[in-house]
Amino acid sequence: MNPEILGFVMDQLFEIGALDVTFAPVYMKKNRPGTRIEVLCRPKDRDVLIQEILTQTTALGVRYHPCDRAVLHREPCQMDTVFGKVAAKKIRHPDGTDRMVPEYEALAKIARIRGLALKEVYARACGNPLDRKNDKI
Amino acid sequence: MNPEILGFVMDQLFEIGALDVTFAPVYMKKNRPGTRIEVLCRPKDRDVLIQEILTQTTALGVRYHPCDRAVLHREPCQMDTVFGKVAAKKIRHPDGTDRMVPEYEALAKIARIRGLALKEVYARACGNPLDRKNDKI
Amino acid sequence: MNPEILGFVMDQLFEIGALDVTFAPVYMKKNRPGTRIEVLCRPKDRDVLIQEILTQTTALGVRYHPCDRAVLHREPCQMDTVFGKVAAKKIRHPDGTDRMVPEYEALAKIARIRGLALKEVYARACGNPLDRKNDKI
Amino acid sequence: MNPEILGFVMDQLFEIGALDVTFAPVYMKKNRPGTRIEVLCRPKDRDVLIQEILTQTTALGVRYHPCDRAVLHREPCQMDTVFGKVAAKKIRHPDGTDRMVPEYEALAKIARIRGLALKEVYARACGNPLDRKNDKI
Amino acid sequence: MNPEILGFVMDQLFEIGALDVTFAPVYMKKNRPGTRIEVLCRPKDRDVLIQEILTQTTALGVRYHPCDRAVLHREPCQMDTVFGKVAAKKIRHPDGTDRMVPEYEALAKIARIRGLALKEVYARACGNPLDRKNDKI
Amino acid sequence: MNPEILGFVMDQLFEIGALDVTFAPVYMKKNRPGTRIEVLCRPKDRDVLIQEILTQTTALGVRYHPCDRAVLHREPCQMDTVFGKVAAKKIRHPDGTDRMVPEYEALAKIARIRGLALKEVYARACGNPLDRKNDKI
Repeated sequence: MNPEILGFVMDQLFEIGALDVTFAPVYMKKNRPGTRIEVLCRPKDRDVLIQEILTQTTALGVRYHPCDRAVLHREPCQMDTVFGKVAAKKIRHPDGTDRMVPEYEALAKIARIRGLALKEVYARACGNPLDRKNDKI
Repeated sequence: MNPEILGFVMDQLFEIGALDVTFAPVYMKKNRPGTRIEVLCRPKDRDVLIQEILTQTTALGVRYHPCDRAVLHREPCQMDTVFGKVAAKKIRHPDGTDRMVPEYEALAKIARIRGLALKEVYARACGNPLDRKNDKI
Repeated sequence: MNPEILGFVMDQLFEIGALDVTFAPVYMKKNRPGTRIEVLCRPKDRDVLIQEILTQTTALGVRYHPCDRAVLHREPCQMDTVFGKVAAKKIRHPDGTDRMVPEYEALAKIARIRGLALKEVYARACGNPLDRKNDKI
Repeated sequence: MNPEILGFVMDQLFEIGALDVTFAPVYMKKNRPGTRIEVLCRPKDRDVLIQEILTQTTALGVRYHPCDRAVLHREPCQMDTVFGKVAAKKIRHPDGTDRMVPEYEALAKIARIRGLALKEVYARACGNPLDRKNDKI
Repeated sequence: MNPEILGFVMDQLFEIGALDVTFAPVYMKKNRPGTRIEVLCRPKDRDVLIQEILTQTTALGVRYHPCDRAVLHREPCQMDTVFGKVAAKKIRHPDGTDRMVPEYEALAKIARIRGLALKEVYARACGNPLDRKNDKI
Repeated sequence: MNPEILGFVMDQLFEIGALDVTFAPVYMKKNRPGTRIEVLCRPKDRDVLIQEILTQTTALGVRYHPCDRAVLHREPCQMDTVFGKVAAKKIRHPDGTDRMVPEYEALAKIARIRGLALKEVYARACGNPLDRKNDKI
């Protein structure tokens, strides 16, 4: 499989319902390095995703098995930061506390516009937004 | 595990019924890099394959779980190419069309004998065999 | 290092002059899986790229050494295909022959618009464009 | 995820009941290299381990599925070696024979104290302990 | 190579002067998955480290080449946090600013003693230590 | 790159002078998993090997840099084992001692013919060949 095609396939799989797609490096017979495509999906989307993989790639077969998933409750929200309000997720932790996590795209955009390191943008957005409102940014 | 032994084990597992064997790099406790051996097999061959792994390797346990597989229908065939007839697989795609894929061993042999790049042999074999019958090869 | 940051860093490094950026999985002391960032660049861009890595990531040091590169001569061109003219690269091979390789972005766009598998678009674009001009696509 | 945290999490998971923990390198969307944490546990420990992962890491979800395991019977024992008695495991093989495997910690300690290569300590401990009792070590 | 031995070798190499040791998964001929041991060291320690690798492992050869390194200036310091003073590194960034990074061992110890997630300990230690002095911890 | 082609290329590179060839999994831009081909060779063979890679693969460039190598002196020999004489290498260690290592092919053949685990064949061949001459094998 051409790696260009694999990048394309990942996008396609997300578009038609994959909840998660990961690639893992594997090693096959006859000294062939390969890539395993792993897809997480709802049962109702399974067959369409299998078809897509068999159509888009040179794979001759796809294995699948049911699995459960424990997920933290999350909901979209706005988060106050030194950069102003940014799109975020509010996540409920196992111990009942909430945590707000800013969205990557929102912070990446700030980093690009202001010419800051993304690492720095994360640190400042998550740090202590209320106390730093008077910072010169 | 000695890597030499892993290569040997892969061959053995195919010989006694494995449908597929892959190695995946993993990282274990105490800074130990390891190799996961993953085997796909029919239910009837499972126990023999587990025995083989426990006999051939230093693994103390083998995990297994059932999985289903969606496979494209395929059958052996002969394919006309600019290099003459070569062993191939006829594969039926999800949309009902057929595709012929020449066998690796057949093309690798042609590449070795003629001193061509295997990439080139694939391209020419799959390209448009009928229209190129008059090429000087 | 947050993986979101690594994806961002790759983009940044290409923007400021990296010729190539790859990530490789490595295992470090104390059971820490890590990612090695590998950058190929011209000597004149080296220091700026090192600064960027030290600014954007949590790395405390960057190793570098000179290396040479043998590259095939290539130039942008247009390629006739069953899908019409598409952006491509003309590559001169070691044996003096030329090969045209369509650009990924051009074929990916065709695949998306027509709803075809990218694999199929590649095969048809590279196959035998002149002889298929009358195909119904 | 900070790799330092991953090393810590591995230790924690073993402490609260994991039978095995491995890390596998994966590649996610948007050019993000990641690490899959894979845990083997008894059904009764599953929920506590899932909670730990969701608490300790930035993962928003954990997948799980039942699996069986074929394990070789093993029991702790003492093994006579040229270095004296060392802690070991007696393992019963599929063919009914027993094999003694010295514990890593015991041999590593010997290697450190005597300034020998661990490879050498393994070879001598496993080689033929009875016949070498008169070796000068 | 037995993975147990590789973990041991990593420790040994650090003890005798390695500045950094990483393992990388590679694939060798005859379907053999292997591990590349990569060591960074000062020129004066090179020969001793090579000897150690050739003594401790089954490798028959070691490749080496000179490389330079750009490193951020760093010095040990104490850092005020909501958990009290902890051992840290003061790092000077390319732009001339300083950043304090608490030592992993110090925070891991706090996490273990207080039963907190290490992720949480990092966030609170780095967050905004001065303004949170009155938190109930 | 088709993985079948990579297996073929590895064989070719060894045939025309490569001293070692390894594959390493890497991640490239646009979510493309790739394989790095790493070749060790004598300076005199470098250009031919570069040509081969550029001819056989879709790579548009090859990087190279000089490196030194520390190798243990080794020479072919015959080794007495419980299975009779087998082809082996005599290796001189850094401390001046010699070690005999049986050749993989010789032991793999014994394992196949006798239906023994290769692991067992290694253990018995290296264990204590002289003292076991009277074993019933």
